[in-house]
Amino acid sequence: MSEVRFNELRGEEVVYAIHRQERTFLPAREHCPLDPTKPGGPKTEIPYPSFEIVVFENRFPAFEAPHGAAEVIVYTDQHEGSLATLSPQRVEDLMWVWRHRYAELGAREQTRYVMIFENRGVEVGVTLHHPHGQVYAYPFLPPVPALELRADARLGGCATCALLADELSDGRRLLFCDERIAAYVPYAARWAYEVHLVVRAHRASLLECDAEDLRSLARSLQTLVRGYDALFERPFPYVMVVHQTPTGEVPDGLKRSGHVHLEFYPPLRAAEKLKYLAGSEQGAGTFIADTVPEESAAALREAIALGA
Amino acid sequence: MSEVRFNELRGEEVVYAIHRQERTFLPAREHCPLDPTKPGGPKTEIPYPSFEIVVFENRFPAFEAPHGAAEVIVYTDQHEGSLATLSPQRVEDLMWVWRHRYAELGAREQTRYVMIFENRGVEVGVTLHHPHGQVYAYPFLPPVPALELRADARLGGCATCALLADELSDGRRLLFCDERIAAYVPYAARWAYEVHLVVRAHRASLLECDAEDLRSLARSLQTLVRGYDALFERPFPYVMVVHQTPTGEVPDGLKRSGHVHLEFYPPLRAAEKLKYLAGSEQGAGTFIADTVPEESAAALREAIALGA
Repeated sequence: MSEVRFNELRGEEVVYAIHRQERTFLPAREHCPLDPTKPGGPKTEIPYPSFEIVVFENRFPAFEAPHGAAEVIVYTDQHEGSLATLSPQRVEDLMWVWRHRYAELGAREQTRYVMIFENRGVEVGVTLHHPHGQVYAYPFLPPVPALELRADARLGGCATCALLADELSDGRRLLFCDERIAAYVPYAARWAYEVHLVVRAHRASLLECDAEDLRSLARSLQTLVRGYDALFERPFPYVMVVHQTPTGEVPDGLKRSGHVHLEFYPPLRAAEKLKYLAGSEQGAGTFIADTVPEESAAALREAIALGA
Repeated sequence: MSEVRFNELRGEEVVYAIHRQERTFLPAREHCPLDPTKPGGPKTEIPYPSFEIVVFENRFPAFEAPHGAAEVIVYTDQHEGSLATLSPQRVEDLMWVWRHRYAELGAREQTRYVMIFENRGVEVGVTLHHPHGQVYAYPFLPPVPALELRADARLGGCATCALLADELSDGRRLLFCDERIAAYVPYAARWAYEVHLVVRAHRASLLECDAEDLRSLARSLQTLVRGYDALFERPFPYVMVVHQTPTGEVPDGLKRSGHVHLEFYPPLRAAEKLKYLAGSEQGAGTFIADTVPEESAAALREAIALGA
């Protein structure tokens, strides 16, 4: 029951998934569909009494096989918590699950782009609080990865490598880095506390990452989300998106380039103030920000020290 | 204190207007800065005891002269109300004010795009409830109008004319039309109740519209917003954007084309349910909708009959 239409004025596909209007919305604590199914307890989506990480097809999918896929990745059988509170080993395991889902969904003939993401917080419309993320396999190349391919073409090389080099040499927006991973508020961030976590070596996707890359990525991810939670001393809402090379055909004149990195889009611009996408963002496509990235980076560096 | 930076990965400008963090947020009723200044009363932004329509430069602008402009258009000296409750004459006058601001701001050398818009409702972050809209004069061509130029190039003619002809001949998504203006939920709407109000003759901008076009546009605008308010029997939030031809230079290979129309982006997908822009919308740029445009159009046609 899902349909894809081409929006001519915007030059993009729009997806209609009409069963989704009925999807589960903030169920009572005792009816979480992502909890394990305990003996004698209510049946959940996961028919096991305990588990580490579970992946299953979304019951209210944006995309349905054979035209795409929408999966849920449950990070833990514990209802409370977040990426910040998982064990380091579990987050590292999650990186391998991401890698596996990218490989498997990306290998399907109809898939042109695999996107792993997490929506966190009611501020971004989250309907289930149990710690989880999602994966979409798009049967077309969406606008944002297409723009990234265009950036690579415009710069005549990897745009992410070029931006990373600039951020490392400038340093004002850098949050932390080790040998494998760098974290920064990008020079032209759209969101007040937008952060990019970038694998420093040029890796097209998680498939090219070695065990040490993934271990460092997991560690950096936890460092960042703990800093986020410390920033305003509250659970910090965000949209987190893993950007990787498209797995299918790309438009004429572009190369299938890419460089794996995570982008975080947090809707808060202050402890109690949301950034709304209104006239300029929706009508022009231009973000108007209230804060400069250098100041956000300074605040985040302090919060990360507190959160450590 | 505003700064424009180029976001390389997205291929777009981002604007930093750092004084805006301090802007007036839902002031108490007796301190509305858009009210008239009554003798002996508090001084507002508007130093007149009464007025019809007032335009002034935003005190907390996204853009500052000489690099652009941000203006406020106050529709009435009455604090309560909306486009739906203004007199037909006032809305018609407003169309002439829009036309005037497009002409004047568009004629400035540094302006590349003029966008007239209205944000309505706390759901889209509105900070002042007094009926008003805004105008931005961008010193660059933003992504959305650039996409519209690309649509014209791709179709080898005016995309809006082509889409209008399709909607008129299909009819399933048409809300109403007269000789001058047609209103429809577009075939590939991003928002559940997105509506486009289109001048039927090919007019690049409001400057090419004659008095009868503007009169009909004003009437259609009120018909639509009254229908919106009737849909869920509540004030209906939206972002309304006037799309017109860019007034400055356009990218190589594109023509300075365009066709004046209004687009409404309402965040509600049901009476009490908001559409959030999360993983897919932010990370991929792809909207996932819960409703099909044909069903929304049917519901809106009924609401418009009720609101009339």
